[in-house]
Amino acid sequence: MLIIGEKINSSRKDIKDMVEGKNKEFIQELAQKQVEGGAQMLDLNIGTIRKSEPEDMKWLVKTVQEAVDVPLCIDSPNHKAIMQGLEVYDWDKGKALINSVTAEREKLELILPLVKKYQCSIVALTMNEQGIPQNSKERFKIADGLIRKLTNEGIPIEDIYIDPLALPVSANIQNANIVLETLKRIKDSHPEVKTIIGLSNISYGLPERRLINQSFVILAMVCGLAAVILDSTDQKIMALIKATNVLQGKDEFCRKYLQAFREGKL
Amino acid sequence: MLIIGEKINSSRKDIKDMVEGKNKEFIQELAQKQVEGGAQMLDLNIGTIRKSEPEDMKWLVKTVQEAVDVPLCIDSPNHKAIMQGLEVYDWDKGKALINSVTAEREKLELILPLVKKYQCSIVALTMNEQGIPQNSKERFKIADGLIRKLTNEGIPIEDIYIDPLALPVSANIQNANIVLETLKRIKDSHPEVKTIIGLSNISYGLPERRLINQSFVILAMVCGLAAVILDSTDQKIMALIKATNVLQGKDEFCRKYLQAFREGKL
Repeated sequence: MLIIGEKINSSRKDIKDMVEGKNKEFIQELAQKQVEGGAQMLDLNIGTIRKSEPEDMKWLVKTVQEAVDVPLCIDSPNHKAIMQGLEVYDWDKGKALINSVTAEREKLELILPLVKKYQCSIVALTMNEQGIPQNSKERFKIADGLIRKLTNEGIPIEDIYIDPLALPVSANIQNANIVLETLKRIKDSHPEVKTIIGLSNISYGLPERRLINQSFVILAMVCGLAAVILDSTDQKIMALIKATNVLQGKDEFCRKYLQAFREGKL
Repeated sequence: MLIIGEKINSSRKDIKDMVEGKNKEFIQELAQKQVEGGAQMLDLNIGTIRKSEPEDMKWLVKTVQEAVDVPLCIDSPNHKAIMQGLEVYDWDKGKALINSVTAEREKLELILPLVKKYQCSIVALTMNEQGIPQNSKERFKIADGLIRKLTNEGIPIEDIYIDPLALPVSANIQNANIVLETLKRIKDSHPEVKTIIGLSNISYGLPERRLINQSFVILAMVCGLAAVILDSTDQKIMALIKATNVLQGKDEFCRKYLQAFREGKL
Protein backbone atom coordinates (compact mmCIF):
# COMPACT_ATOMS: atom_id res chain seq x y z
CA MET A 1 0.00 0.00 0.00
CA LEU A 2 1.31 3.39 -1.04
CA ILE A 3 1.70 5.72 1.95
CA ILE A 4 1.12 9.41 1.15
CA GLY A 5 2.06 11.97 3.82
CA GLU A 6 -0.81 14.34 4.62
CA LYS A 7 0.87 17.02 6.68
CA ILE A 8 1.58 19.76 4.15
CA ASN A 9 -2.02 20.95 4.27
CA SER A 10 -2.93 24.58 4.80
CA SER A 11 -6.08 23.76 6.75
CA ARG A 12 -3.60 23.65 9.63
CA LYS A 13 -2.96 27.27 10.62
CA ASP A 14 0.80 26.86 11.14
CA ILE A 15 1.25 25.31 7.70
CA LYS A 16 -0.79 28.11 6.10
CA ASP A 17 1.42 30.72 7.79
CA MET A 18 4.62 28.95 6.76
CA VAL A 19 3.57 28.66 3.12
CA GLU A 20 2.37 32.27 2.96
CA GLY A 21 5.59 33.39 4.64
CA LYS A 22 7.60 31.17 2.24
CA ASN A 23 9.39 29.50 5.13
CA LYS A 24 11.48 27.06 3.16
CA GLU A 25 13.25 25.49 6.09
CA PHE A 26 10.04 24.64 7.96
CA ILE A 27 8.40 23.06 4.91
CA GLN A 28 11.49 21.10 3.93
CA GLU A 29 11.87 19.75 7.43
CA LEU A 30 8.21 18.71 7.50
CA ALA A 31 8.69 16.96 4.14
CA GLN A 32 11.76 15.11 5.39
CA LYS A 33 10.07 14.03 8.63
CA GLN A 34 7.18 12.51 6.73
CA VAL A 35 9.49 10.58 4.42
CA GLU A 36 11.53 9.37 7.38
CA GLY A 37 8.27 8.21 8.97
CA GLY A 38 7.54 6.08 5.92
CA ALA A 39 5.77 8.30 3.37
CA GLN A 40 6.49 7.18 -0.20
CA MET A 41 4.73 10.23 -1.65
CA LEU A 42 3.73 13.61 -0.17
CA ASP A 43 0.38 15.33 -0.55
CA LEU A 44 0.49 19.11 -1.08
CA ASN A 45 -2.80 20.82 -0.27
CA ILE A 46 -2.94 24.59 0.12
CA GLY A 47 -6.55 25.01 -0.93
CA THR A 48 -7.28 27.38 1.94
CA ILE A 49 -4.88 29.93 0.43
CA ARG A 50 -7.33 31.11 -2.21
CA LYS A 51 -5.75 34.26 -3.60
CA SER A 52 -2.24 33.10 -4.36
CA GLU A 53 -2.70 29.31 -4.51
CA PRO A 54 -1.26 28.79 -8.02
CA GLU A 55 1.86 30.84 -7.32
CA ASP A 56 2.27 29.28 -3.89
CA MET A 57 1.86 25.75 -5.29
CA LYS A 58 4.69 26.45 -7.71
CA TRP A 59 6.94 27.55 -4.86
CA LEU A 60 5.81 24.60 -2.74
CA VAL A 61 6.54 21.92 -5.36
CA LYS A 62 10.02 23.32 -5.94
CA THR A 63 10.69 23.68 -2.23
CA VAL A 64 9.59 20.15 -1.34
CA GLN A 65 11.38 18.52 -4.27
CA GLU A 66 14.59 20.23 -3.28
CA ALA A 67 14.39 18.41 0.05
CA VAL A 68 13.08 14.92 -0.70
CA ASP A 69 13.16 12.36 -3.50
CA VAL A 70 9.59 11.05 -3.40
CA PRO A 71 6.88 11.89 -5.96
CA LEU A 72 4.14 14.38 -5.05
CA CYS A 73 0.38 14.37 -4.93
CA ILE A 74 -0.77 17.81 -6.10
CA ASP A 75 -4.03 18.26 -4.27
CA SER A 76 -6.22 21.18 -5.23
CA PRO A 77 -9.75 22.02 -6.34
CA ASN A 78 -8.14 24.71 -8.55
CA HIS A 79 -6.84 23.49 -11.91
CA LYS A 80 -4.60 26.55 -12.16
CA ALA A 81 -2.77 25.56 -9.00
CA ILE A 82 -2.36 22.02 -10.35
CA MET A 83 -1.08 23.40 -13.64
CA GLN A 84 1.49 25.64 -11.97
CA GLY A 85 2.64 22.80 -9.77
CA LEU A 86 3.08 20.44 -12.72
CA GLU A 87 5.01 23.06 -14.70
CA VAL A 88 7.90 23.07 -12.24
CA TYR A 89 7.59 19.40 -11.18
CA ASP A 90 10.81 17.37 -11.29
CA TRP A 91 9.84 14.19 -13.16
CA ASP A 92 13.01 12.40 -12.12
CA LYS A 93 11.40 11.99 -8.69
CA GLY A 94 8.62 9.83 -10.10
CA LYS A 95 5.18 10.30 -11.60
CA ALA A 96 3.03 13.07 -10.09
CA LEU A 97 -0.48 12.25 -8.83
CA ILE A 98 -3.18 14.86 -9.51
CA ASN A 99 -5.77 15.08 -6.76
CA SER A 100 -8.51 15.26 -8.08
CA VAL A 101 -11.25 15.10 -10.68
CA THR A 102 -14.90 14.29 -10.10
CA ALA A 103 -17.62 13.17 -12.50
CA GLU A 104 -18.54 16.84 -12.99
CA ARG A 105 -18.15 17.63 -16.68
CA GLU A 106 -16.53 21.01 -16.10
CA LYS A 107 -13.91 19.58 -13.75
CA LEU A 108 -13.07 16.80 -16.16
CA GLU A 109 -12.62 19.22 -19.05
CA LEU A 110 -10.14 21.29 -17.09
CA ILE A 111 -8.11 18.46 -15.59
CA LEU A 112 -8.02 15.82 -18.36
CA PRO A 113 -5.73 17.83 -20.66
CA LEU A 114 -3.22 18.14 -17.81
CA VAL A 115 -3.27 14.41 -17.08
CA LYS A 116 -2.67 13.68 -20.76
CA LYS A 117 -0.01 16.33 -21.28
CA TYR A 118 2.06 15.29 -18.27
CA GLN A 119 1.10 11.58 -18.26
CA CYS A 120 0.53 11.63 -14.53
CA SER A 121 -1.74 9.56 -12.32
CA ILE A 122 -5.13 10.89 -11.31
CA VAL A 123 -7.40 10.65 -8.27
CA ALA A 124 -11.07 10.48 -9.25
CA LEU A 125 -13.67 11.17 -6.55
CA THR A 126 -17.02 9.39 -6.45
CA MET A 127 -19.08 12.56 -6.71
CA ASN A 128 -20.96 14.27 -9.50
CA GLU A 129 -23.12 17.38 -10.08
CA GLN A 130 -25.65 15.95 -7.61
CA GLY A 131 -23.07 15.60 -4.84
CA ILE A 132 -21.84 12.52 -2.96
CA PRO A 133 -24.35 9.64 -2.90
CA GLN A 134 -25.26 8.22 0.52
CA ASN A 135 -24.83 4.58 -0.55
CA SER A 136 -22.10 2.43 -2.05
CA LYS A 137 -24.17 1.33 -5.05
CA GLU A 138 -24.38 4.87 -6.38
CA ARG A 139 -20.81 5.71 -5.45
CA PHE A 140 -19.66 2.65 -7.32
CA LYS A 141 -21.76 3.68 -10.33
CA ILE A 142 -19.97 7.03 -10.43
CA ALA A 143 -16.60 5.29 -10.05
CA ASP A 144 -17.50 2.92 -12.85
CA GLY A 145 -18.47 5.82 -15.11
CA LEU A 146 -15.26 7.69 -14.30
CA ILE A 147 -13.12 4.64 -15.05
CA ARG A 148 -14.79 4.24 -18.45
CA LYS A 149 -14.51 7.95 -19.21
CA LEU A 150 -10.84 8.15 -18.23
CA THR A 151 -9.77 4.99 -20.04
CA ASN A 152 -11.74 6.10 -23.13
CA GLU A 153 -9.66 9.27 -23.05
CA GLY A 154 -6.53 7.13 -23.17
CA ILE A 155 -5.54 7.30 -19.50
CA PRO A 156 -3.86 3.97 -18.62
CA ILE A 157 -5.99 2.07 -16.12
CA GLU A 158 -3.08 1.68 -13.69
CA ASP A 159 -2.86 5.48 -13.44
CA ILE A 160 -6.39 5.78 -12.03
CA TYR A 161 -6.96 6.04 -8.28
CA ILE A 162 -10.62 6.02 -7.18
CA ASP A 163 -11.37 7.82 -3.90
CA PRO A 164 -14.75 6.70 -2.48
CA LEU A 165 -14.75 9.71 -0.11
CA ALA A 166 -14.67 8.93 3.59
CA LEU A 167 -17.17 11.20 5.37
CA PRO A 168 -17.30 11.42 9.19
CA VAL A 169 -18.96 8.51 11.01
CA SER A 170 -20.04 11.05 13.59
CA ALA A 171 -22.47 12.43 10.97
CA ASN A 172 -23.75 9.02 9.78
CA ILE A 173 -22.82 5.76 11.45
CA GLN A 174 -22.92 4.03 8.04
CA ASN A 175 -20.28 6.30 6.49
CA ALA A 176 -17.41 3.86 7.01
CA ASN A 177 -19.42 0.90 5.72
CA ILE A 178 -20.35 2.86 2.58
CA VAL A 179 -16.67 3.52 1.83
CA LEU A 180 -15.57 -0.05 2.60
CA GLU A 181 -18.36 -1.51 0.47
CA THR A 182 -17.46 0.83 -2.41
CA LEU A 183 -13.79 -0.20 -2.16
CA LYS A 184 -14.82 -3.87 -2.36
CA ARG A 185 -17.07 -3.31 -5.37
CA ILE A 186 -14.29 -1.48 -7.23
CA LYS A 187 -11.78 -4.20 -6.37
CA ASP A 188 -14.16 -6.91 -7.59
CA SER A 189 -15.17 -5.20 -10.85
CA HIS A 190 -11.95 -3.42 -11.81
CA PRO A 191 -9.02 -5.25 -10.19
CA GLU A 192 -6.45 -3.17 -12.12
CA VAL A 193 -7.82 0.14 -10.88
CA LYS A 194 -6.25 1.54 -7.71
CA THR A 195 -8.17 2.87 -4.72
CA ILE A 196 -7.22 5.65 -2.34
CA ILE A 197 -8.63 7.31 0.76
CA GLY A 198 -7.78 10.37 2.80
CA LEU A 199 -7.88 8.73 6.20
CA SER A 200 -8.50 11.36 8.81
CA ASN A 201 -11.85 12.71 7.64
CA ILE A 202 -13.62 9.57 8.90
CA SER A 203 -12.99 10.50 12.56
CA TYR A 204 -13.93 14.18 12.33
CA GLY A 205 -16.08 15.29 15.27
CA LEU A 206 -15.10 12.37 17.55
CA PRO A 207 -12.68 12.29 20.49
CA GLU A 208 -9.50 10.20 20.31
CA ARG A 209 -9.57 10.38 16.53
CA ARG A 210 -6.38 8.35 16.21
CA LEU A 211 -8.17 5.21 17.41
CA ILE A 212 -10.81 5.55 14.71
CA ASN A 213 -8.16 6.27 12.07
CA GLN A 214 -6.09 3.27 13.16
CA SER A 215 -9.00 0.88 12.92
CA PHE A 216 -10.24 2.38 9.65
CA VAL A 217 -6.97 1.95 7.81
CA ILE A 218 -6.94 -1.75 8.77
CA LEU A 219 -10.55 -2.20 7.61
CA ALA A 220 -9.70 -0.48 4.32
CA MET A 221 -6.62 -2.70 3.86
CA VAL A 222 -8.94 -5.72 4.05
CA CYS A 223 -10.81 -4.21 1.08
CA GLY A 224 -7.62 -3.99 -0.97
CA LEU A 225 -6.86 -0.27 -0.52
CA ALA A 226 -3.95 0.68 -2.80
CA ALA A 227 -3.01 4.08 -1.35
CA VAL A 228 -3.75 6.12 1.76
CA ILE A 229 -3.18 9.75 2.69
CA LEU A 230 -2.30 9.88 6.40
CA ASP A 231 0.09 11.22 9.00
CA SER A 232 3.18 9.13 8.38
CA THR A 233 4.94 10.75 11.35
CA ASP A 234 2.43 8.95 13.60
CA GLN A 235 4.55 5.93 14.51
CA LYS A 236 1.63 4.05 16.02
CA ILE A 237 -0.50 3.96 12.87
CA MET A 238 2.54 3.12 10.74
CA ALA A 239 3.36 0.24 13.11
CA LEU A 240 -0.21 -1.08 12.92
CA ILE A 241 -0.02 -1.03 9.11
CA LYS A 242 3.18 -3.09 9.32
CA ALA A 243 1.47 -5.52 11.72
CA THR A 244 -1.45 -5.82 9.30
CA ASN A 245 0.92 -6.56 6.42
CA VAL A 246 2.31 -9.42 8.51
CA LEU A 247 -1.15 -10.81 9.25
CA GLN A 248 -2.23 -10.51 5.62
CA GLY A 249 0.75 -12.67 4.67
CA LYS A 250 2.43 -9.83 2.75
CA ASP A 251 5.61 -9.62 4.82
CA GLU A 252 7.48 -12.84 4.23
CA PHE A 253 9.27 -14.16 7.33
CA CYS A 254 8.03 -10.93 9.02
CA ARG A 255 11.20 -9.37 7.63
CA LYS A 256 9.97 -5.77 7.36
CA TYR A 257 8.23 -5.96 10.72
CA LEU A 258 11.38 -7.23 12.44
CA GLN A 259 13.50 -4.62 10.68
CA ALA A 260 11.15 -1.86 11.85
CA PHE A 261 11.46 -3.26 15.38
CA ARG A 262 15.26 -3.17 15.21
CA GLU A 263 15.07 0.45 13.99
CA GLY A 264 12.88 1.37 16.96
CA LYS A 265 9.92 2.07 14.69
CA LEU A 266 7.31 -0.20 16.26
CA MET B 1 -18.62 -9.53 20.22
CA LEU B 2 -18.31 -11.38 23.52
CA ILE B 3 -15.14 -10.36 25.39
CA ILE B 4 -13.61 -13.15 27.48
CA GLY B 5 -10.81 -12.22 29.90
CA GLU B 6 -7.70 -14.38 29.41
CA LYS B 7 -5.65 -13.55 32.47
CA ILE B 8 -6.45 -16.38 34.88
CA ASN B 9 -4.09 -18.71 33.06
CA SER B 10 -1.46 -20.74 34.87
CA SER B 11 1.02 -20.55 32.01
CA ARG B 12 1.93 -17.30 33.75
CA LYS B 13 4.15 -18.21 36.68
CA ASP B 14 2.58 -15.75 39.15
CA ILE B 15 -0.91 -17.07 38.43
CA LYS B 16 0.27 -20.66 38.86
CA ASP B 17 1.78 -19.79 42.24
CA MET B 18 -1.33 -17.94 43.37
CA VAL B 19 -3.65 -20.81 42.43
CA GLU B 20 -1.39 -23.43 44.02
CA GLY B 21 -1.12 -21.25 47.13
CA LYS B 22 -4.91 -20.72 47.11
CA ASN B 23 -4.47 -16.96 47.26
CA LYS B 24 -8.11 -15.96 47.12
CA GLU B 25 -7.57 -12.21 47.32
CA PHE B 26 -5.15 -12.12 44.38
CA ILE B 27 -7.40 -14.20 42.12
CA GLN B 28 -10.53 -12.27 43.03
CA GLU B 29 -8.83 -8.95 42.37
CA LEU B 30 -7.61 -10.20 38.99
CA ALA B 31 -11.15 -11.32 38.15
CA GLN B 32 -12.60 -7.95 39.13
CA LYS B 33 -10.00 -6.01 37.15
CA GLN B 34 -10.80 -7.97 34.00
CA VAL B 35 -14.53 -7.35 34.37
CA GLU B 36 -13.93 -3.65 35.02
CA GLY B 37 -11.82 -3.60 31.85
CA GLY B 38 -14.79 -4.91 29.85
CA ALA B 39 -14.69 -8.72 30.10
CA GLN B 40 -18.21 -10.22 29.89
CA MET B 41 -16.91 -13.71 30.71
CA LEU B 42 -13.67 -14.98 32.26
CA ASP B 43 -11.53 -17.85 31.01
CA LEU B 44 -10.07 -20.16 33.67
CA ASN B 45 -7.09 -22.16 32.43
CA ILE B 46 -4.86 -23.96 34.91
CA GLY B 47 -3.73 -26.71 32.57
CA THR B 48 -0.10 -26.38 33.64
CA ILE B 49 -1.05 -27.56 37.14
CA ARG B 50 -1.25 -31.21 36.16
CA LYS B 51 -1.41 -33.00 39.48
CA SER B 52 -4.18 -31.16 41.26
CA GLU B 53 -5.97 -29.50 38.33
CA PRO B 54 -9.45 -30.91 39.06
CA GLU B 55 -9.37 -29.94 42.73
CA ASP B 56 -7.85 -26.56 41.95
CA MET B 57 -10.45 -25.86 39.27
CA LYS B 58 -13.19 -26.47 41.81
CA TRP B 59 -11.59 -23.96 44.17
CA LEU B 60 -11.01 -21.50 41.31
CA VAL B 61 -14.59 -21.54 40.03
CA LYS B 62 -15.95 -20.93 43.53
CA THR B 63 -13.36 -18.24 44.25
CA VAL B 64 -13.96 -16.32 41.02
CA GLN B 65 -17.76 -16.55 41.22
CA GLU B 66 -17.68 -15.17 44.74
CA ALA B 67 -16.07 -12.04 43.34
CA VAL B 68 -17.73 -11.34 39.97
CA ASP B 69 -21.11 -11.85 38.31
CA VAL B 70 -20.04 -12.90 34.80
CA PRO B 71 -20.23 -16.45 33.43
CA LEU B 72 -17.05 -18.52 33.11
CA CYS B 73 -15.21 -20.32 30.36
CA ILE B 74 -13.81 -23.53 31.88
CA ASP B 75 -10.73 -24.14 29.81
CA SER B 76 -8.94 -27.45 30.20
CA PRO B 77 -7.67 -30.44 28.22
CA ASN B 78 -8.70 -32.55 31.23
CA HIS B 79 -12.36 -33.56 31.37
CA LYS B 80 -12.06 -34.22 35.09
CA ALA B 81 -11.09 -30.61 35.75
CA ILE B 82 -14.06 -29.47 33.63
CA MET B 83 -16.36 -31.81 35.51
CA GLN B 84 -15.19 -30.56 38.92
CA GLY B 85 -15.55 -26.95 37.80
CA LEU B 86 -19.09 -27.53 36.54
CA GLU B 87 -20.11 -29.27 39.75
CA VAL B 88 -19.67 -26.15 41.83
CA TYR B 89 -20.59 -23.64 39.10
CA ASP B 90 -23.19 -21.02 40.07
CA TRP B 91 -25.68 -21.10 37.20
CA ASP B 92 -27.30 -17.84 38.28
CA LYS B 93 -24.26 -16.08 36.80
CA GLY B 94 -25.09 -17.31 33.29
CA LYS B 95 -24.34 -20.31 31.12
CA ALA B 96 -20.85 -21.81 31.43
CA LEU B 97 -18.72 -22.29 28.32
CA ILE B 98 -16.66 -25.49 28.12
CA ASN B 99 -13.33 -25.03 26.37
CA SER B 100 -12.93 -27.40 24.51
CA VAL B 101 -13.64 -30.47 22.41
CA THR B 102 -11.94 -31.49 19.18
CA ALA B 103 -12.99 -33.89 16.45
CA GLU B 104 -11.06 -36.64 18.29
CA ARG B 105 -13.55 -39.38 19.15
CA GLU B 106 -12.18 -39.96 22.62
CA LYS B 107 -12.39 -36.27 23.52
CA LEU B 108 -15.94 -36.04 22.27
CA GLU B 109 -17.04 -39.07 24.27
CA LEU B 110 -15.72 -37.57 27.48
CA ILE B 111 -16.98 -34.03 27.01
CA LEU B 112 -20.38 -34.49 25.30
CA PRO B 113 -22.11 -35.97 28.35
CA LEU B 114 -21.05 -32.93 30.39
CA VAL B 115 -22.35 -30.48 27.79
CA LYS B 116 -25.67 -32.29 27.75
CA LYS B 117 -25.96 -32.73 31.49
CA TYR B 118 -25.25 -29.08 32.29
CA GLN B 119 -26.67 -27.57 29.06
CA CYS B 120 -23.65 -25.36 28.66
CA SER B 121 -22.02 -23.89 25.58
CA ILE B 122 -19.05 -25.60 24.00
CA VAL B 123 -15.90 -24.53 22.16
CA ALA B 124 -14.99 -26.96 19.37
CA LEU B 125 -11.47 -26.79 17.94
CA THR B 126 -10.72 -27.47 14.27
CA MET B 127 -8.39 -30.33 14.93
CA ASN B 128 -8.70 -34.11 14.77
CA GLU B 129 -6.55 -37.22 15.28
CA GLN B 130 -4.27 -36.04 12.45
CA GLY B 131 -3.63 -32.67 14.09
CA ILE B 132 -4.37 -29.14 12.87
CA PRO B 133 -4.60 -28.83 9.07
CA GLN B 134 -2.41 -26.20 7.40
CA ASN B 135 -5.22 -24.78 5.25
CA SER B 136 -8.65 -23.28 5.76
CA LYS B 137 -10.43 -25.79 3.52
CA GLU B 138 -9.53 -28.69 5.80
CA ARG B 139 -10.09 -26.73 8.98
CA PHE B 140 -13.54 -25.79 7.73
CA LYS B 141 -14.23 -29.43 6.93
CA ILE B 142 -13.46 -30.39 10.52
CA ALA B 143 -15.63 -27.50 11.79
CA ASP B 144 -18.44 -28.61 9.52
CA GLY B 145 -18.18 -32.19 10.80
CA LEU B 146 -18.12 -31.02 14.42
CA ILE B 147 -21.20 -28.83 13.91
CA ARG B 148 -23.12 -31.81 12.44
CA LYS B 149 -21.95 -34.13 15.18
CA LEU B 150 -22.82 -31.72 18.00
CA THR B 151 -26.23 -30.74 16.62
CA ASN B 152 -27.02 -34.43 15.97
CA GLU B 153 -26.32 -35.01 19.64
CA GLY B 154 -28.94 -32.40 20.46
CA ILE B 155 -26.64 -29.49 21.29
CA PRO B 156 -28.44 -26.26 20.24
CA ILE B 157 -26.59 -24.63 17.35
CA GLU B 158 -26.34 -21.31 19.20
CA ASP B 159 -24.37 -23.04 21.97
CA ILE B 160 -21.57 -24.02 19.58
CA TYR B 161 -18.41 -21.88 19.32
CA ILE B 162 -15.92 -22.94 16.64
CA ASP B 163 -12.28 -22.03 17.31
CA PRO B 164 -10.23 -22.17 14.07
CA LEU B 165 -7.00 -22.15 16.12
CA ALA B 166 -4.72 -19.18 15.62
CA LEU B 167 -1.13 -20.40 15.34
CA PRO B 168 1.82 -17.98 15.37
CA VAL B 169 2.46 -16.02 12.15
CA SER B 170 6.12 -16.15 13.10
CA ALA B 171 6.02 -19.88 12.26
CA ASN B 172 4.05 -19.55 9.01
CA ILE B 173 3.19 -16.21 7.45
CA GLN B 174 -0.12 -17.66 6.20
CA ASN B 175 -1.34 -18.61 9.70
CA ALA B 176 -3.52 -15.51 10.13
CA ASN B 177 -5.00 -15.84 6.63
CA ILE B 178 -5.87 -19.48 7.33
CA VAL B 179 -7.81 -18.50 10.46
CA LEU B 180 -9.54 -15.53 8.81
CA GLU B 181 -10.53 -17.60 5.80
CA THR B 182 -11.89 -20.37 8.07
CA LEU B 183 -13.92 -17.80 10.05
CA LYS B 184 -15.43 -16.50 6.79
CA ARG B 185 -16.31 -19.98 5.54
CA ILE B 186 -18.04 -20.83 8.83
CA LYS B 187 -19.94 -17.53 8.80
CA ASP B 188 -21.07 -18.13 5.21
CA SER B 189 -22.12 -21.77 5.65
CA HIS B 190 -23.42 -21.76 9.24
CA PRO B 191 -24.50 -18.22 10.10
CA GLU B 192 -26.07 -19.33 13.43
CA VAL B 193 -22.88 -20.95 14.68
CA LYS B 194 -20.60 -18.73 16.77
CA THR B 195 -16.86 -18.37 16.25
CA ILE B 196 -14.16 -17.74 18.84
CA ILE B 197 -10.41 -17.20 18.94
CA GLY B 198 -7.80 -17.01 21.63
CA LEU B 199 -6.08 -13.86 20.42
CA SER B 200 -2.57 -13.79 21.75
CA ASN B 201 -1.20 -16.99 20.24
CA ILE B 202 -1.03 -15.36 16.79
CA SER B 203 1.82 -13.03 17.87
CA TYR B 204 3.94 -15.59 19.70
CA GLY B 205 7.64 -15.24 18.86
CA LEU B 206 7.37 -11.65 17.57
CA PRO B 207 8.36 -8.40 19.27
CA GLU B 208 5.71 -5.81 20.16
CA ARG B 209 3.06 -8.52 20.26
CA ARG B 210 0.33 -6.06 21.20
CA LEU B 211 0.47 -4.48 17.73
CA ILE B 212 -0.11 -7.84 16.05
CA ASN B 213 -2.91 -8.70 18.50
CA GLN B 214 -4.57 -5.31 17.95
CA SER B 215 -4.60 -5.68 14.20
CA PHE B 216 -5.65 -9.33 14.33
CA VAL B 217 -8.74 -8.72 16.44
CA ILE B 218 -9.90 -6.09 13.93
CA LEU B 219 -9.29 -8.44 11.00
CA ALA B 220 -11.22 -11.18 12.80
CA MET B 221 -14.10 -8.79 13.53
CA VAL B 222 -14.39 -8.21 9.78
CA CYS B 223 -14.93 -11.98 9.46
CA GLY B 224 -17.80 -11.88 11.95
CA LEU B 225 -15.97 -13.18 15.03
CA ALA B 226 -18.51 -13.78 17.84
CA ALA B 227 -16.18 -14.11 20.83
CA VAL B 228 -12.56 -13.44 21.67
CA ILE B 229 -10.31 -14.44 24.56
CA LEU B 230 -7.96 -11.53 25.27
CA ASP B 231 -6.49 -9.27 27.91
CA SER B 232 -9.44 -7.03 28.75
CA THR B 233 -7.27 -4.98 31.13
CA ASP B 234 -5.36 -3.74 28.06
CA GLN B 235 -7.20 -0.45 27.53
CA LYS B 236 -5.68 0.10 24.10
CA ILE B 237 -7.03 -3.07 22.51
CA MET B 238 -10.41 -2.57 24.17
CA ALA B 239 -10.52 0.99 22.78
CA LEU B 240 -9.66 -0.24 19.27
CA ILE B 241 -12.50 -2.77 19.47
CA LYS B 242 -14.86 0.07 20.39
CA ALA B 243 -13.55 2.15 17.47
CA THR B 244 -14.10 -0.82 15.15
CA ASN B 245 -17.68 -1.21 16.39
CA VAL B 246 -18.23 2.45 15.44
CA LEU B 247 -16.77 1.95 11.96
CA GLN B 248 -18.77 -1.23 11.39
CA GLY B 249 -21.94 0.76 12.09
CA LYS B 250 -22.69 -1.22 15.25
CA ASP B 251 -22.55 1.67 17.73
CA GLU B 252 -25.47 3.93 16.90
CA PHE B 253 -24.70 7.64 17.29
CA CYS B 254 -21.28 6.46 18.57
CA ARG B 255 -22.98 6.28 21.97
CA LYS B 256 -20.81 3.57 23.53
CA TYR B 257 -17.63 5.09 22.10
CA LEU B 258 -18.47 8.52 23.53
CA GLN B 259 -19.45 7.00 26.87
CA ALA B 260 -16.11 5.16 27.03
CA PHE B 261 -14.39 8.46 26.28
CA ARG B 262 -16.22 10.20 29.12
CA GLU B 263 -15.22 7.37 31.45
CA GLY B 264 -11.56 7.81 30.47
CA LYS B 265 -11.50 4.39 28.80
CA LEU B 266 -10.28 5.36 25.31
